[in-house]
Amino acid sequence: MAKAKLSPKGLRDFLPETMAVRNMVIGRLKSVFEKYGFDELQTPAMESQEILLGKTGESAEKLMYLFKDPGGRDVGLRYDLTIPLARVMTENRDLTLPFKRYQIQPVWRAEKPQKGRYRQILHCDIDIVGSASPMADAEILAIINHCLVLLGFDKFKIRLNSRVVLFESMKSAKIPKDIWLTVIQSIDKLDKKSKSEVENELTNKSLNKTQIKAVFDELSKAKPDEHLQKTIDLAKKYGLESNLVFDPTLSRGLDYYTGPIFETVVEEPKIGSITGGGRYDTLLKALKGPDLPATGTSFGLDRIVDVVIENNLLKDIPPTSTQVLVTVFSEKTLDKSIEIVKLLRKSGINSELYTDANTKLEKQLKYADKKSLPWAVIAGPKEILANQVVLKNLKTKKQQTVAVESLLVTIK
Amino acid sequence: MAKAKLSPKGLRDFLPETMAVRNMVIGRLKSVFEKYGFDELQTPAMESQEILLGKTGESAEKLMYLFKDPGGRDVGLRYDLTIPLARVMTENRDLTLPFKRYQIQPVWRAEKPQKGRYRQILHCDIDIVGSASPMADAEILAIINHCLVLLGFDKFKIRLNSRVVLFESMKSAKIPKDIWLTVIQSIDKLDKKSKSEVENELTNKSLNKTQIKAVFDELSKAKPDEHLQKTIDLAKKYGLESNLVFDPTLSRGLDYYTGPIFETVVEEPKIGSITGGGRYDTLLKALKGPDLPATGTSFGLDRIVDVVIENNLLKDIPPTSTQVLVTVFSEKTLDKSIEIVKLLRKSGINSELYTDANTKLEKQLKYADKKSLPWAVIAGPKEILANQVVLKNLKTKKQQTVAVESLLVTIK
Repeated sequence: MAKAKLSPKGLRDFLPETMAVRNMVIGRLKSVFEKYGFDELQTPAMESQEILLGKTGESAEKLMYLFKDPGGRDVGLRYDLTIPLARVMTENRDLTLPFKRYQIQPVWRAEKPQKGRYRQILHCDIDIVGSASPMADAEILAIINHCLVLLGFDKFKIRLNSRVVLFESMKSAKIPKDIWLTVIQSIDKLDKKSKSEVENELTNKSLNKTQIKAVFDELSKAKPDEHLQKTIDLAKKYGLESNLVFDPTLSRGLDYYTGPIFETVVEEPKIGSITGGGRYDTLLKALKGPDLPATGTSFGLDRIVDVVIENNLLKDIPPTSTQVLVTVFSEKTLDKSIEIVKLLRKSGINSELYTDANTKLEKQLKYADKKSLPWAVIAGPKEILANQVVLKNLKTKKQQTVAVESLLVTIK
Repeated sequence: MAKAKLSPKGLRDFLPETMAVRNMVIGRLKSVFEKYGFDELQTPAMESQEILLGKTGESAEKLMYLFKDPGGRDVGLRYDLTIPLARVMTENRDLTLPFKRYQIQPVWRAEKPQKGRYRQILHCDIDIVGSASPMADAEILAIINHCLVLLGFDKFKIRLNSRVVLFESMKSAKIPKDIWLTVIQSIDKLDKKSKSEVENELTNKSLNKTQIKAVFDELSKAKPDEHLQKTIDLAKKYGLESNLVFDPTLSRGLDYYTGPIFETVVEEPKIGSITGGGRYDTLLKALKGPDLPATGTSFGLDRIVDVVIENNLLKDIPPTSTQVLVTVFSEKTLDKSIEIVKLLRKSGINSELYTDANTKLEKQLKYADKKSLPWAVIAGPKEILANQVVLKNLKTKKQQTVAVESLLVTIK
């Protein structure tokens, strides 16, 4: 009946059935973060433009929603959860360090809407601010591993590298320092492009053949630096050995990383990278925040939920937490229906009362079916006289007459 | 050190300690909504201006954040959760009816920031769309009552009235129909202003003395209309009798209500109205949505959380869910600390590993104290040899040496 979508492009509603899976995924991630001693932080959707534009390039600025607040100040919607963290660290200098926070909130990006790309996406970041030790990096890796296992991902790898490894390789290959980052950006594409395509790209960036060969030679014999090696050794103690892959060509897009960098590649189902992070010891200071080392990772939560739904990874999540529909036989029996629904709720059973006494029973049962409720209770005049109810299992379609007091036991 | 607040005015960060209470409050409300068979809905922060401005007056428009999206479309941040619900009902005509949803998300209002007034506020709405029966209104009242009791509010009243009662009184008082709403708006102020102040206001609205007297006379003898009386009778069956107050002067600000209206007044602590709602049978159609009756209520969640914190209504909420800090004696004993923290986490005990092997033990324990963790575990070389650890209770400052295997029992 509705002709066109009234909601702006690139935005999604999450109807109850999807919310059930989302809440399950978020609940599992939160339980892991808290198991590792992380606490939750929430920040407002709007930040001042001064903060938002502090450390980002023009390409990011183009993707931001920027506008004025009623006082005439330049504000915008947050683009990631790292900038708000930096601001919080700046405004709250008395926070106990190391500060371990998780944050699960939407960010907004004015991207061209296309399949799988939305303008509001749910981000989930965990970070440890105030520890320069590889132990902090290893804890982050352990959490990533724990989360993915708990979400039902069987086959995945955590790819590891370090900015130090990349810079040392550039240095050994005698690449001029001012083009290290642009060379690294080309190298990073090796997981999507062929080697010769990347070589062409480097030629276009005016590297000669000797330089290009040197870059690949150095990278192929690169070893983890000391900090990364310690991180790997520690991560192994958490039982992560089989999932860790040192990949000297991994570079991650953002240029603020200073040490280990890591991303998760899920191999089955084939969905590519769903987490990305690393150590960023100079970013907070660069954002005019405190001079504190930090490490962390971001989970692409919307993407993870989409994959979990598509591949039915978390089996048997009911589309609703409601378990019972208490039907209403007639106006006259309404009191009994209220009494029963009260009893069920009091016993911790999520139960609906059908909120119309004049609807045919058949239609009420159809409603319960459509909502995939497991049970329906019918209390007609005959049953009420005998202090009984009819309990219908909506999956098997079988029904039985039970005493009111044994209703709870049967449902549980 | 930070000179000025970097975050825009009227916006708040929620640091972990506050998040603990917020999550507790939200968790309790959600558990009640689900107990009554409501499912969660989430919608994006942005809506098209066409939708946002569809049914609101100029005063609301002034308070909205309106801007353009990258495609040049006029969009804005949602101002309430009713408009998004209407849009969802319009775009999803196949939703099973009655549709019972709860929605807990922020809304934005470009208000003048002042104590207790913020520009991003967390709203919480429950609504039943598609039922015209007083049973639906009674369920909403039962939920409000259940939530407030569960949040620790001892003394509160649910004030009830109906638009029908107000309109009938206006009619009997022979007030011209075109000024009913403005007269009702003045009457609504009786809980904050004296009767003579309201009388003056009505005089300014060019009512004569006879009319003003007639209004008050009619209201003083007003009785609930049939739908409201049925709602009250049903609510009593849920055990709400002592909390219900029929108040014929209650009108609620918004003019879209068509039947019962209700608000909660908490008397101890004295905080006034924290929920407000009613029946709005024509709003969805007016917003170009489906022609469906609806009823529901809004909880002022930020305000509720502030009150819960100020009055310590939910006692003993720990500021963190972390229970144990596993300290690190030295680089050499690190493996043992990792082993212990793994064991604790596996047993479901939220535990932190101190992520620096070179920090003095004293400083590590101070960290645990600052974070109000209940327990700290110390595994020094002596203890490790005996397969023991020192378990320190950080509240009582008492410590005991226990075998690693009995650690879990002692903490639990």
